[in-house]
Amino acid sequence: MPVGTLASVKGVSQDILEELGVRILLGNTYHLYLRPGVEQVRKLGGLHRFMAWPRAILTDSGGFQVFSLNELRKVTEEGVTFRSHLDGSSHFFSPESAMDAQIGLGADIIMAFDECTEYPANQERMRASMQLTLRWAERSKRHFEEHKGEVPWASVETAATQALLGIVQGGMDLALRKESAERTIKIGFPGYAIGGLSVGEPRSLTREVIESTLEHLPIDKPRYLMGVGTPEEIVEYANLGVDMMDCVLPTRAARHGVLFTSEGKISIKQARYAGDEAALDPTCGCRVCLRYSRAYLRHLYAANEVLAQVLNTVHNLSFYLDTMRAVRHSISLGKETGSSCVRSQPKP
Amino acid sequence: MPVGTLASVKGVSQDILEELGVRILLGNTYHLYLRPGVEQVRKLGGLHRFMAWPRAILTDSGGFQVFSLNELRKVTEEGVTFRSHLDGSSHFFSPESAMDAQIGLGADIIMAFDECTEYPANQERMRASMQLTLRWAERSKRHFEEHKGEVPWASVETAATQALLGIVQGGMDLALRKESAERTIKIGFPGYAIGGLSVGEPRSLTREVIESTLEHLPIDKPRYLMGVGTPEEIVEYANLGVDMMDCVLPTRAARHGVLFTSEGKISIKQARYAGDEAALDPTCGCRVCLRYSRAYLRHLYAANEVLAQVLNTVHNLSFYLDTMRAVRHSISLGKETGSSCVRSQPKP
Repeated sequence: MPVGTLASVKGVSQDILEELGVRILLGNTYHLYLRPGVEQVRKLGGLHRFMAWPRAILTDSGGFQVFSLNELRKVTEEGVTFRSHLDGSSHFFSPESAMDAQIGLGADIIMAFDECTEYPANQERMRASMQLTLRWAERSKRHFEEHKGEVPWASVETAATQALLGIVQGGMDLALRKESAERTIKIGFPGYAIGGLSVGEPRSLTREVIESTLEHLPIDKPRYLMGVGTPEEIVEYANLGVDMMDCVLPTRAARHGVLFTSEGKISIKQARYAGDEAALDPTCGCRVCLRYSRAYLRHLYAANEVLAQVLNTVHNLSFYLDTMRAVRHSISLGKETGSSCVRSQPKP
Repeated sequence: MPVGTLASVKGVSQDILEELGVRILLGNTYHLYLRPGVEQVRKLGGLHRFMAWPRAILTDSGGFQVFSLNELRKVTEEGVTFRSHLDGSSHFFSPESAMDAQIGLGADIIMAFDECTEYPANQERMRASMQLTLRWAERSKRHFEEHKGEVPWASVETAATQALLGIVQGGMDLALRKESAERTIKIGFPGYAIGGLSVGEPRSLTREVIESTLEHLPIDKPRYLMGVGTPEEIVEYANLGVDMMDCVLPTRAARHGVLFTSEGKISIKQARYAGDEAALDPTCGCRVCLRYSRAYLRHLYAANEVLAQVLNTVHNLSFYLDTMRAVRHSISLGKETGSSCVRSQPKP
């Protein structure tokens, strides 16, 4: 899922996203809450209508941005007080207000309000944080069930298609992850996310936590790994059994001139590409690789042309989506190897 | 003609320019000479191949940018010494080197090297500047004829399709404009440009100079008015008999959130558009107006999203191209009014 923080995948218009085969866009509740504001989007018919995007939209709960962008946040049982990174103004998110925000934005997939445990954290802190997330998950669900579909454009279909996913936390402790998964499942959601990863821990630990947590999540419901990763990682995690992932990497890397190709990562700013007439990725069929040379992309980047960001982003998204298509194809053919067999075998 | 200063119309990919119906793109020799460099583009097969643009390209001579971006320039009979606005390095353009640059870039339409007379200027200065431009026009033509098509990818067709246009100067003095036109025609070019306007003079004076100068230019050859104007102005000048115009206004205004519509100019940053669900221009059929609301465009601009620049530019270019299509249609139907009849009547 590409990240469209402020109701826009930076530099790429919606028709190109459709052409690329994007099925679900991620919007950041924190950012949209600040600009243009939930009430504004609500009045304008929800995010789909506002940004002219007919396909699915997933919104995060706002929790992760509150934790990552706010040094002055204050967490209580009730919720989180934080300051806007834009103007320093004070705001408050609770499980209830995070549900109201996401319902008002009209997302199809809504995330429970959670606390993203920092890394490193000691055992006591990881347990307390996980338990807070569980209590917030209950409150999220209760409020969501009571208020879903309460939007000006509501119809039977709107309420019926909105889904709230639970989030498993527990830091890097496998026993806490197991407990978090089991208790979140007990609350009951139509899908489950693994949160609190890619927060600075070593990659081997990320994988260990993912693999272990997946064992405790039902395979017949969507399993969503939040905020990862490189192309190699998304292949690895998909083969482990992850169904959904979101990551700013393809779009953010594109803005820094880092491009993913079948031959590895390329930093297009390097002088070695100034005279390179080859396509960025000779095996890629995206509109960028079919038309432009590395030399031209290098020039656009070096000259700080906006088109550099546009074309780089289109290619990186195409590469990620192609990667996921290949993984799905491979899984559907039963060709996955190693731990990926977790998908095709029922749990004991 | 949209302006693609650095081999890119800022934010808009070439396939969209094709879809918009762009026939000729303008590249700035001064900018391309500095980045990525003429020799680089030459080695890579010329601008068309470098930027993957199969349709026509016109390059200016570099003179206007040298004059407008360089306070420390030094003009002699031989040419102009100037400093790069990027790193302050010293460079020299002469009629001969400006021809070499444009031939090396592989432009289809090449402009003679001229001096853009500043405004205001006294009679003596306007005359001296006009005469210098005439001497440079002769040198431009001589060098162009001797060296056109001297490029690695040269074919009979390349040389045959490259055309060098002369530029009429003379400041705001109508008699000098007449003399400049007549003597430029005597040198002989397949088309003529009117330069040295939109340099700070009042608009009524611009029109007076254009109207007067056009009378001295052959109607059976392209007449190109450089660097104008608003939508109203391009309609006015086209009806006066101008065949080609280039202007940064649609693209530059777009970057500042100023959008041209059938109902007039809109500054999309204004709060009044925050809740406006209407299309930017209800009568426009461009991909932006067909899909997005003013509220969304306003949000993108206010949130400083790159997509704002992309969509705003696409719309403004579409509006300009639609305007010119309407003018051509109107002229071909003989419906033009007033002074436009200059086009359909042979000169005495």
